[in-house]
Amino acid sequence: MQIEAKLGNLGFILPEPVQLPPGVVLPFAWTRVHGNRIYISGHGPLDQDGTYSGVLGKVPSEVSLEQAQQAAQKAALSVLSSLKRELGDLDRVTAWLMVSGFVNADPGFGQTTLVMNSFSDVVLRLYGSEVGRHARTAIGVAALPFNVPLVVAAEVEFV
Amino acid sequence: MQIEAKLGNLGFILPEPVQLPPGVVLPFAWTRVHGNRIYISGHGPLDQDGTYSGVLGKVPSEVSLEQAQQAAQKAALSVLSSLKRELGDLDRVTAWLMVSGFVNADPGFGQTTLVMNSFSDVVLRLYGSEVGRHARTAIGVAALPFNVPLVVAAEVEFV
Amino acid sequence: MQIEAKLGNLGFILPEPVQLPPGVVLPFAWTRVHGNRIYISGHGPLDQDGTYSGVLGKVPSEVSLEQAQQAAQKAALSVLSSLKRELGDLDRVTAWLMVSGFVNADPGFGQTTLVMNSFSDVVLRLYGSEVGRHARTAIGVAALPFNVPLVVAAEVEFV
Repeated sequence: MQIEAKLGNLGFILPEPVQLPPGVVLPFAWTRVHGNRIYISGHGPLDQDGTYSGVLGKVPSEVSLEQAQQAAQKAALSVLSSLKRELGDLDRVTAWLMVSGFVNADPGFGQTTLVMNSFSDVVLRLYGSEVGRHARTAIGVAALPFNVPLVVAAEVEFV
Repeated sequence: MQIEAKLGNLGFILPEPVQLPPGVVLPFAWTRVHGNRIYISGHGPLDQDGTYSGVLGKVPSEVSLEQAQQAAQKAALSVLSSLKRELGDLDRVTAWLMVSGFVNADPGFGQTTLVMNSFSDVVLRLYGSEVGRHARTAIGVAALPFNVPLVVAAEVEFV
Repeated sequence: MQIEAKLGNLGFILPEPVQLPPGVVLPFAWTRVHGNRIYISGHGPLDQDGTYSGVLGKVPSEVSLEQAQQAAQKAALSVLSSLKRELGDLDRVTAWLMVSGFVNADPGFGQTTLVMNSFSDVVLRLYGSEVGRHARTAIGVAALPFNVPLVVAAEVEFV
């Protein structure tokens, strides 16, 4: 499996499934497959045990740009972890289409692009510039679930 | 009609079409049908006469969590009202795909998940866990049209 | 070419491709074509040379409603400029589907609808009420790349 091998070569380890805080129930799906499309819910950064990373809050006043970029990389791994559970094999993704990044930003933080680049870089390093090519938005928002520093939603095609 | 019967059993009444404030013109469609897909514009909570609910402002400083959850339920009914006008019969929806919830949040409000669960719950109670299964984002934003407490956009499939 | 002629009649000139600030790299595509769909990344307002307009900041405290509406019109031209580069001929767009507008708003700014109407108006004047018909969200957000006053993402169909 090419993508899994690349993940290993890059030193990336996919996190466990999301471990929610006690009492939290999520009446939606992390991935929604329909036809050859997968709609991917907003994923935050996870530690390897599937818990939300301890790095929480606003970028850049509470979470530095560098930490936010690390969180974006972790969010990419969260998405890939969900995709692997859905598809079994990450090589089945044939096209990244749209990526929507929502950064938990202080008003006027103008570097959401730099944060989300760390997400896009993971996609491109694994899938290359053809399959991995994606449109993107990188928005700074007022609030996010559990106060995570960013969440990323996406739409991909698979076979 | 199964969904309409379920709506009645749950005590839900679909609101009238949106009644805009005087002078406001909307040059877009509440629902955009193309092929077997319906793209659904951001819908806010409506009272039964189609006016925007009087519960307006930021969650949680101006609108409590409980009020926001009621607003999310009302937004689900707004969406269903638009779908019924578009399709005639709500049973024609064959798959919920993506739901994007935007909560008019104070900075750092970490419970957008709990707000949007009230939207997802309506979908799942009416359509069940297969047709109603959807991916979701639940974002807190700085501002919304007419200062409504949330809007929800979606994409569904129909026959 | 019908759309290009209409652009000329309306006095609209498409901007040059985005000229990024020095050192900024964007690892994503302004347009992602797949099948007969084009996913369009968040586009901000550009001056004709492709640089980000000097009108930057929050609506309405730093950027007036009127300026924001002009920015929305410019963002529409930015999107059209990208579509022309992708398709060669803007007449190939056969359906506008979803438009997502993100306004760099002060908390509680309730007129994102009025801002985004200036985007929708360009689409409708060029493509008419059938091809141009689109679903839409108009959200106020905390922060945007390079502090632009709005970005707009979209999904269209083409032949």
